[in-house]
Amino acid sequence: MSNINDANLKKLRQILKERAIDYFILPNNDEFFSEYLPESEKKIEFLTGFSGSNAAIIIGQKQCWFFTDGRYVLQAKKQLNLKEYKIYNLAEESLFSWLENNLKKNKKLAFYVKNHDIGFVNKISAIINQNKALLLAFEEDFFDKIWLKRPKKPDSKIYFHDLQYSGKDSIKKRQEITANLSEDAILFTSSASIAWLLNIRASDIKYTPLLLAYGILYKNNDFELFCDQKRMDVASRKKLTKVNFNDPKYLPSRIADLKSQISNLQIDLNSTNYWIYKLLIENNLNLTAKSDPCLITKAVKNKTEIAGMIKAHYLDGLAVTKFLFWLKNSSMIDEIKAEEKLLEFRKANQEFLYPSFASISSFGSNGAIIHYKATKKTNKKISGNSLYLIDSGGQYFYGTTDITRTVAIGSPTLAMKNDFTRVLKGHINLARAKFPIGTTGNQLDPLARFNLWQDLKDYDHGTGHGVGSFLSVHEGPVSISKRAQNQSLLPGMILSNEPGYYKEGEYGIRIENLVLVQEKKSQLPGNKKFLHFKTLTLAPIDYQLIDFKMLTYPEKKWLYDYHQEIYDKLSGNLEASEKKWLGNIIDLYAKVGR
Amino acid sequence: MSNINDANLKKLRQILKERAIDYFILPNNDEFFSEYLPESEKKIEFLTGFSGSNAAIIIGQKQCWFFTDGRYVLQAKKQLNLKEYKIYNLAEESLFSWLENNLKKNKKLAFYVKNHDIGFVNKISAIINQNKALLLAFEEDFFDKIWLKRPKKPDSKIYFHDLQYSGKDSIKKRQEITANLSEDAILFTSSASIAWLLNIRASDIKYTPLLLAYGILYKNNDFELFCDQKRMDVASRKKLTKVNFNDPKYLPSRIADLKSQISNLQIDLNSTNYWIYKLLIENNLNLTAKSDPCLITKAVKNKTEIAGMIKAHYLDGLAVTKFLFWLKNSSMIDEIKAEEKLLEFRKANQEFLYPSFASISSFGSNGAIIHYKATKKTNKKISGNSLYLIDSGGQYFYGTTDITRTVAIGSPTLAMKNDFTRVLKGHINLARAKFPIGTTGNQLDPLARFNLWQDLKDYDHGTGHGVGSFLSVHEGPVSISKRAQNQSLLPGMILSNEPGYYKEGEYGIRIENLVLVQEKKSQLPGNKKFLHFKTLTLAPIDYQLIDFKMLTYPEKKWLYDYHQEIYDKLSGNLEASEKKWLGNIIDLYAKVGR
Repeated sequence: MSNINDANLKKLRQILKERAIDYFILPNNDEFFSEYLPESEKKIEFLTGFSGSNAAIIIGQKQCWFFTDGRYVLQAKKQLNLKEYKIYNLAEESLFSWLENNLKKNKKLAFYVKNHDIGFVNKISAIINQNKALLLAFEEDFFDKIWLKRPKKPDSKIYFHDLQYSGKDSIKKRQEITANLSEDAILFTSSASIAWLLNIRASDIKYTPLLLAYGILYKNNDFELFCDQKRMDVASRKKLTKVNFNDPKYLPSRIADLKSQISNLQIDLNSTNYWIYKLLIENNLNLTAKSDPCLITKAVKNKTEIAGMIKAHYLDGLAVTKFLFWLKNSSMIDEIKAEEKLLEFRKANQEFLYPSFASISSFGSNGAIIHYKATKKTNKKISGNSLYLIDSGGQYFYGTTDITRTVAIGSPTLAMKNDFTRVLKGHINLARAKFPIGTTGNQLDPLARFNLWQDLKDYDHGTGHGVGSFLSVHEGPVSISKRAQNQSLLPGMILSNEPGYYKEGEYGIRIENLVLVQEKKSQLPGNKKFLHFKTLTLAPIDYQLIDFKMLTYPEKKWLYDYHQEIYDKLSGNLEASEKKWLGNIIDLYAKVGR
Repeated sequence: MSNINDANLKKLRQILKERAIDYFILPNNDEFFSEYLPESEKKIEFLTGFSGSNAAIIIGQKQCWFFTDGRYVLQAKKQLNLKEYKIYNLAEESLFSWLENNLKKNKKLAFYVKNHDIGFVNKISAIINQNKALLLAFEEDFFDKIWLKRPKKPDSKIYFHDLQYSGKDSIKKRQEITANLSEDAILFTSSASIAWLLNIRASDIKYTPLLLAYGILYKNNDFELFCDQKRMDVASRKKLTKVNFNDPKYLPSRIADLKSQISNLQIDLNSTNYWIYKLLIENNLNLTAKSDPCLITKAVKNKTEIAGMIKAHYLDGLAVTKFLFWLKNSSMIDEIKAEEKLLEFRKANQEFLYPSFASISSFGSNGAIIHYKATKKTNKKISGNSLYLIDSGGQYFYGTTDITRTVAIGSPTLAMKNDFTRVLKGHINLARAKFPIGTTGNQLDPLARFNLWQDLKDYDHGTGHGVGSFLSVHEGPVSISKRAQNQSLLPGMILSNEPGYYKEGEYGIRIENLVLVQEKKSQLPGNKKFLHFKTLTLAPIDYQLIDFKMLTYPEKKWLYDYHQEIYDKLSGNLEASEKKWLGNIIDLYAKVGR
């Protein structure tokens, strides 16, 4: 909170007043529902000073109501002006339930059309009807008026994602998608789908090499990209066969023209904002709502992408392993210093581009905060007896990485070892699992939790998320989690395997590797096909935290095999001291698991 | 197939001809979609000689198309006249896909309104529209005309299911259901729901103590039962507070009257046949389609029902344990003899009423046929070296049981022991599992399969089904299976835990106990609530089939604890020789698991 924020709020309220708006809904979204917002779309931070990722505000003339989840409530209380903002934990009150209970008859509720999807608008409309209030959809972005030094919309250079990395020509990808298309065209609203489909990348947002744009794929495989063509150099643009650039400002007029060219259009309602949806409806287009066809094809990596991911994990594993050695042999360091050091190790490699998300470098009780980000205020010295947790990842042209290691600092307690070993057993259970084709991540999830559950413990996050190939570190459509899902795991998918345990006020534990779904060559004739995971991540797991008595022989063997593989692959590029240290680790695992 | 069957088909075809019907659909259903059909509804057996449970036929003038699943294909080929019936495995062709591909324009397809639900009719109607054919819904049951000695509809005596067994007064049950009712009344079409709600039982069908009837529950807790009141003696009827009997033949006129009495009616489309549905629609009743509210309340057993189930399992476990001792000490027996002997042991107890389903008594390769039923033709001698599998259950006023044991005959091979131990590890995994509230059976299912999957093996049936309390041995709405489900497990639910493995042509393995879902009193403050299973079934597991090297200590301890409990509970009522035998088993398990 600052005077500037208060002034910003005052300006916004003036605009609402002029338009006779009683309440304005402000979510933390851009028009592409990006995981990381471009600077120009950080409206909530501009308005309130709040820097967390999950938030939505109802802005009234005399009071504002701020909704966020448990991990950000404390932060919100520190960053917001509590005279203006009443803060709610989403677990207790949602924006929807608040409106249901508080929105009075004839009150005018407004929202900005580009920041919500149709699902949200439908839900709000139902409440509006019930409460006999009024809903106003604004095409005007109020922040254009009040945010004087608003950063310009991202327009980073677009570059070609070479065939040596993508493994499949864009035209081939388009052909495969249009081959089964019953509509005349598909409107793509997901930036990750467009990047994947056209084999292009950019830097419009942090951590993820995306360009933020809409596009239309026609049945003849022509692609119309709504993006300034100057953002791509001529040489690269030439490689983009059958792609027509069109200025984004012409999107509405193109949609108006579409009706005369095509008779029906496929869209994915989950990634389409209300502005686009309204445009399509107002222009009487016949819409077929279907899941974005790139979601699954993008999730199933091809041979080149898989080889690239393996290479990226070799490079990344080298950096993390060196970091772990450094960590074990350093003193007088803190969370921020450690995070910087890991980045330094990654940057030592020319192929590393930038982190794939904000690292979580946390010691002791900070480790129990699942989405912790070390700041100068929270920064802990890494010393004494507790656990250090580091969750980080890198973007390489070859692929995207995401790894978490938990490391003993000083002497771990028996409770720490018990918890760590249960998390590890879950991790290994999943890493070793074989399962028939048709199995979902929802079914596999308990394999990672079983040993914690036996101790009446659990963790409040998913066990695994999909990971993109030099794309988003969190990629749909599948996950290994408590969420029910229809899509089963398919060979070529890459997911994280990251069970954890968090003891509030004491420590956090998470062990995360990325794994590739592979088909098991079954030797049993007539039997159905089985899948299994191949672990891609290469970095040692801290044996100091393991209670080996709790492990079965197959679990110990997995640990030995895994560390032997790390040694075989990495030791050639390690310093003598690092190599010796890793060798000692292997010897230790060999003793119990060979 | 017999001449009589051919004559029956000829008569049916004559009727179809007279009504200008090209095709008639005949499913193996009665109007209540009962799991076991009353004699009067075994139309397919009357028509074709086929005695399996899953079948549907499309009857044409020159050819009939017979659809069944894999387990009945061979049987159908033996029992049907192959000149008349073309047999399809449902895995390859369904009745629906056949109609899609073969139903010609203007052809007339007919069905009997009471034997299908609205879901079926909607599916068929879509095909009819697509193929421009015609659909005829007949209220006339053609079998009334052609089946001269058709058994009369079941009208068994209805008896009161005493409070000492049911644990809750019917009025209380009704109050709980109407308390949350937003409609004026509920039409009940599930016979199990009516039996449970009114605390009455009968013998209209085999194995399950049901009366086949419809009923309406009004908001004032009055219940109108469409059933001849003479089926219940006056004394019992008096105990039935606020229940009005009405002759089933008046159901249509009552529905016609309803509109003037109530403004809306709740029904469950899954258990409502098309005849009823049409009646409701034609009489302009406002319908709310919801899940039958008894489904969950019936599945969650009350304290009395749980105590009853425990008692039933004590009685049943005694019989099965005596049987297993007898089996291990007998020679020159066969599958039928063994099945009879087990029934004899069960009948020795006065509280036993009748089996809860047709026993599966199978030796060697017959054990690999999942739904095997021993007949004189298939009856195998139980001798040599293989596995004997017995799946059976009993109905007691106290409750319903269902148990499977697999027993080594002669010397088991290493492969048998490996397979059995993997099945056992899955069984124990589930039996020992603790899991947070909110977990579904779909999520738990892989815990039972994990160890088989590791050997690239699986089984083609669910791991667990709900079981009624002196009701259906297969009870919804939850299961532990690959089927996705929204309903999570709740304390008080009783399910089977029955992983298996089937080696075609060689042997079958299944280990089945019933388990009760209980809340775990968590000692961790602030933690969410956990559930676990309490095993109810009491009968030893054959240690001869266990490779103890494959078991972890907690698994061995579970085996010891389980068998010690069996000994403690049963030994007081065993003969000296049986007791000694069981004592030896305990000693063996104690050696590895104490």
